[in-house]
This record gives sequence, structure tokens and C-alpha cells, in this order.
Amino acid sequence: MANRKVLTTQVAILGAGPAGLMLSHLLAKAGIESTVLELRSHQEIAETVRAGILEHGSVNLLVDCGVSDRVLRDGDRHDGIELRFNGESHRIDFQDLVGESVWLYPQTDVFLDLAARRQADGGDVRYSVTDTSILDIEGKPKVWFTDADGVDYELQADFVTGADGSRSQSRSAIPEARRQRYLHEYPFAWFGILTEAPRSSNELIYAHSANGFALISQRTETVQRMYFQCDPNEDVGNWSDDRIWETFRSRVNGNGFELKEGPVIDKTVLKFRSSVLTPMRHGNLFLAGDAAHTVPPTGAKGLNLALHDVKVLFEGLDSFYRTGNARLLDAYSDLALDRVWKAQQFSYWMTSMLHTPAEAGGFTRARQLGELNSVVSSRHGRAYLAEAYTGWPGSR
Amino acid sequence: MANRKVLTTQVAILGAGPAGLMLSHLLAKAGIESTVLELRSHQEIAETVRAGILEHGSVNLLVDCGVSDRVLRDGDRHDGIELRFNGESHRIDFQDLVGESVWLYPQTDVFLDLAARRQADGGDVRYSVTDTSILDIEGKPKVWFTDADGVDYELQADFVTGADGSRSQSRSAIPEARRQRYLHEYPFAWFGILTEAPRSSNELIYAHSANGFALISQRTETVQRMYFQCDPNEDVGNWSDDRIWETFRSRVNGNGFELKEGPVIDKTVLKFRSSVLTPMRHGNLFLAGDAAHTVPPTGAKGLNLALHDVKVLFEGLDSFYRTGNARLLDAYSDLALDRVWKAQQFSYWMTSMLHTPAEAGGFTRARQLGELNSVVSSRHGRAYLAEAYTGWPGSR
Repeated sequence: MANRKVLTTQVAILGAGPAGLMLSHLLAKAGIESTVLELRSHQEIAETVRAGILEHGSVNLLVDCGVSDRVLRDGDRHDGIELRFNGESHRIDFQDLVGESVWLYPQTDVFLDLAARRQADGGDVRYSVTDTSILDIEGKPKVWFTDADGVDYELQADFVTGADGSRSQSRSAIPEARRQRYLHEYPFAWFGILTEAPRSSNELIYAHSANGFALISQRTETVQRMYFQCDPNEDVGNWSDDRIWETFRSRVNGNGFELKEGPVIDKTVLKFRSSVLTPMRHGNLFLAGDAAHTVPPTGAKGLNLALHDVKVLFEGLDSFYRTGNARLLDAYSDLALDRVWKAQQFSYWMTSMLHTPAEAGGFTRARQLGELNSVVSSRHGRAYLAEAYTGWPGSR
Repeated sequence: MANRKVLTTQVAILGAGPAGLMLSHLLAKAGIESTVLELRSHQEIAETVRAGILEHGSVNLLVDCGVSDRVLRDGDRHDGIELRFNGESHRIDFQDLVGESVWLYPQTDVFLDLAARRQADGGDVRYSVTDTSILDIEGKPKVWFTDADGVDYELQADFVTGADGSRSQSRSAIPEARRQRYLHEYPFAWFGILTEAPRSSNELIYAHSANGFALISQRTETVQRMYFQCDPNEDVGNWSDDRIWETFRSRVNGNGFELKEGPVIDKTVLKFRSSVLTPMRHGNLFLAGDAAHTVPPTGAKGLNLALHDVKVLFEGLDSFYRTGNARLLDAYSDLALDRVWKAQQFSYWMTSMLHTPAEAGGFTRARQLGELNSVVSSRHGRAYLAEAYTGWPGSR
């Protein structure tokens, strides 16, 4: 303790992913100081491939707060998705149904935009820190850490935000008796590839088949992102390009539709689960994004929820610092969780409607087709899905 | 065989429930002969208590084909239901959302109306028959039976319809290799009561609670029908009135709402499961209603599906006898199953959203609340539910 250099700020933020950086940016615009601490290097984050479907509200947030107009220029606006089953595609027309769209814009680019903006604004963002610990969250919090140069610090703050991802260390600062974790495991994972091939489709295709789920997504004109449902313990080493394409063909091709194939340049097994930690606040520690909750990727909600969390949290902090009234800040956990549980439900719904567990019986498979048929044949069903996919109105 | 009296008809119908009698009535109006055989007595059927929520399409069918205008006079039109969770009720306003209603009209009354009309029209409906067997369904079918007076008959027909309920004998006339049965069991049942009490509500209340599901329904001004989720092996003998009302209170009462209680005059455990037999036709045997499929009562779809089946089947038979073209008749199974699987899905959805399996973990319970909240807070979600509950447009 004696050797630690003391720093002070108003809000200490753990995690320089999109959630942490966005919070820091919003606070700075409101004249509230923050310091962001990140275990990974800038390069490591920038090289992590992550999906990126942004709800219209997330895009508006990026644009309105001056972080990026690149999302509108370089991102791809998607006005719909396709649900494919029984060999036929059915378009969910977002614009027609709910008057909204989503943007395909990789999470890495959201990070790069935010990191660049924080740097340009002189924000205090420290990458590659080690040995973090959070102390005294029920009183005046401090965060101990060692910076990239090996210097030990004590960061003193009014509040701490844990935005440090699904393997969050910050959430363990909450006493076990004061937090509850809700978990759901799925009996499958996603096998994700990058392939050097032209686009097979301009919009995402969510394909249900007797052989399991597949998702056809896009990345650039020449590189595409695709996934198929696999066993969580699948080993990418067992999968040749031929075997991969055979799997995609059996799940997606048919009735005149054929995927455009190419060399597979990246293979990963993505495991996922549903988790929610409640409450999302204890004392002066606030959790945001994956640190508090994770969702299966099927609903494309992870990044959007994280941005929503920090928007709500920012409004509470801003109100507190401007007026001294903590009412909105005290409502943070409830306000955030309302959307979190809707997103959990939507992600669970999309996942269970489209994937076929290996042990699923005939009834489950036939009922899934009944559900897909119910959704696509009903304007109300399509609109209910479109509203959730593009992002619910309301709290943002 | 030598001792059997021979009868001939165009369509032999097994089962004098609403499906069998409606088919017989529709055929008679089109000048097509039928004979209906029923194992139970008229009295036994008339005394079976069954729920009765009729979709608008079912009511239209009863009225348009001249069976009953009593449904409009004595039935209760319901323009909505309430979903109750977290101690609050949320109305699903059918009229506002989809411009339709349902009618509360007991299935027993549907039977009585149909049976009276068939009798008035001189229809050939034979109750209390025994020893039925169906022969030669791949050729010229016959049904052997013994009538209430002990006389043995051979009924020769062009077609046989099995509308003989969930314990159908007729479906076993289809060779095992030519039929597939889809089954889903639920880990709970309904404890149903009749109580001498005034109405607690003018509309059905579907209540989700930490203690399990309950459904508040109505029957008359002075007798009400209510249900609560129970173990499938529950013994009604273990349930005093006090214990029953305590259970209802813990699942429904709260925030100023109190059930009106009274003496319990009937107690039953209703077991249910989802089942579908495909195809619904083999040779010249057609299955309809519960003989082909059963649904959990949560979606109130059983009777409505049965009436839809026979409407579609009638159209096929009518077309065949009028024109000699079997195209529509050959499409019967596919046309009926399209709606059957939508109804299976809807019934499964309502059931799994509202009931809490004993072994459900915290995630499932919290996600259910997230789903209920998603539905009631979205006009699209409410409309999707309302459209299914009141009956999909289209094939009728």
C-alpha cells in the first residue's frame, strides 16, 4: 500500500470493451471523469473476431454521441433476415413490419471507433494492466492495479463499473450472499468459419434443418462469416474444408439455393450459455454488459445489451452528479434487467426454435416446424420477432 | 358374417362427439349419407364436463350450417383474457388486437345442439354400440358392430371416418408401419374444480405464479370452473376445500384481487399430453379430432381443431361426390395438419410459458417472467397470442 501511487477519479471502469469505453465517453461528454483499466492489450482486443449486429438504437447511440459515422458509411444496413426451413426461405421484412433496421458492423470496429475517440479526447484508458483488485465497494471504492510498465497504483473513485466481460473479475467483489446467478447451458455450440468467398446472400439466413442449425452471415465483399450447430466438445482439427462445406450444404442448400464456397481461413468452436447476475449493482459497484449477463449469439443481443446497460448507467450517474439525486442511479439494476430478461427470452426463443438438440424426439422437431410456420405465416408473429431483433422501443 | 345384417352408407363415422356429428350434419346438408356409431350412450356424453372455448370460426360454423344459434344467445362472448403474473393482471384485448372474439360455451352444449339437430333431421346416429371393428380400409371398407339391442351389423361404406376420441380404436386400423405418432408428456396435470360461487372475473385469467399455474374460468352465474397445476399423480381425495382454496389464493390473489370462494362440488385431475398421428388418412379411413391429435388444454384448442378437421374433410368428400375429383380429399391430411401443428405449438407455448415444472431452476422461472413481460409489453406479442387464441384465419 505504501508503494502504490494514488490516482483519483469519479468513476473507475474495468474493461475497455465497447461497454467500458462507451461509458467513459458518455461520462466525459457530461464532464465526469473516469479511468478505464483493461487486462488485454489494444491489439488483442482489436484482433478478436466477434459478430456485430447493431440494433438501430445502438447505431443511434454511436452516431448521436459523436463516436462514429463510420457505422453508417461502412456498416451494412440490413432491412430483414431470412428464416429458412423445409428447404424454403421466408423473409422477415423489418422495415415493412416495424419500420426499423439493424446494421452489420463488426464489434471490433465498434471498439476501434470508441478507442480512437477516447484517445483523441485525452481519455484515461490503460491497457495491459495486471493484478487488479476492487476494494471497499460498500464505502469509498478503490481499485488496485499494476500498469503495463509494472507500476502499482491505487485508483480511488466514487463508483466502480465492472464492464470486464463474461469472465469478469469485478463481479466476484460482490459478496456471494448478495448476488444470485441464473444459468442455462445449451447442449450444442457453434462452429464458426471465415471463408474467402463472395456473398451467398445480402441478408443473414437462419436455417433450421433436420441436420441442425446453420447461420449464413457476411463480412466483406470477399470474406464471409458462417456458423453451424455442433457439439460443444467439437475439435476444429477434425474438420477439413470438404467436411465443413458438406455440412453447410446439407443444412442450407436446396430448391435452387446454393452457398458460394471458398477456402476456409478461420475455424472456431463458440461455446455459449445464458447467464444473468442480479442485482447488477452492489454498493458502489455497477456491473454492465457480459460481466452481468451473457446470451446465446442466436439473437444477436450481446453487444446491444451492453450498450443499453451503459446508456442507462450513464443517465443515472449523470443525474446523480448534476443534481445529487440518486433516484435514477438506484433504479439502474431494475431498468437494465427489464431489457436483459427480454433479451434472454428472445435469445432462448431463437435458439430453441432453430436448433435441434441431438436427443430431440420427433415431436420436438415437428413442433419446431409448426412454430416456424406459425411465425412466418402470421404478420403479428413476424412483427413480434422483428421488433425484438431490431431492438425494443422504450427504455432507450 | 352370415349372421350380420348388412347396412350400406356413403360415409361411416365412428364417434358421436362434436366432430363426428358435425361431419354427419354437413354431409347430410350436401346430400351425402352417413351412419354414426358411438360406444357411449347419449347420456354419458351429455354428462361429461368439458371446457368450451370456441374460436370465432367454430361459432361461425355452428351458426352458418344451422346447428345452433343458442351459442350466440346462451354462450358468453369473451373479447379478451387476462395474463396474470408478478401479482398483476395484463389484459389481452382480442377485439382491439385482431378484431375477433371467442365464445365460452361448454362442449356438452355443442354436443347437445348437434345431436338434437341430427335427430330432428332423421340422421342415423347409433349410441351404445359395442364390438366395433373396421375392415378393408385399403379397399371397400366395412365396419362391424353390435347395436344397443345386441344385433350384429356389417356397415358397408365408401369411406370411414375415425372421430372416436383420444382413445380411438379406429386409428389402430392403420397398419403400424404406415403411421407415425408424435408424443410429448408434461410433468404436471390440472386439478379442476366446479365451485358454487359467483364469478370472480368476467374473462378467463391465466395466472403464472411462483407456486405454479392457475386458470380461473366461468360456467354460469352461480357455478364456476377453475384449475390449478398439480402433480399428474395427485389424488383428489387428499384435497379438502380449505386446501384447494389456499392453493388458489397463493397463486391468484394479490394486489386487491381476491377470488370469490364457495363450496367445491366437483374435483378432477385432468392429465394431458401432446400427440399427433400422421398421416391423418390411410386408404379410405380418415382420422379427425382427438383420434388423430390431442393438445394440452392451456390453449383451448382441442374442440376447435376437431371442428376444423371435419370442415376440411367435408369439403374434400363433398368435392369428390360432386365432381368425382379426389384432389381436395387427397389433400385432407396436409391441410388439417398445417393447423394441427400450429395449434400444437400454441398449446405447447402457452403451457410452457405459464406452468412451472417442479424441477425448474431459477433461470427458467425468471425467463418465463421475461417472456410474459415481452408478450404483454409488445402490441405485436399480444396480437400474435390473440390471433392464435381466437383462431388463425385462412383455411376455414
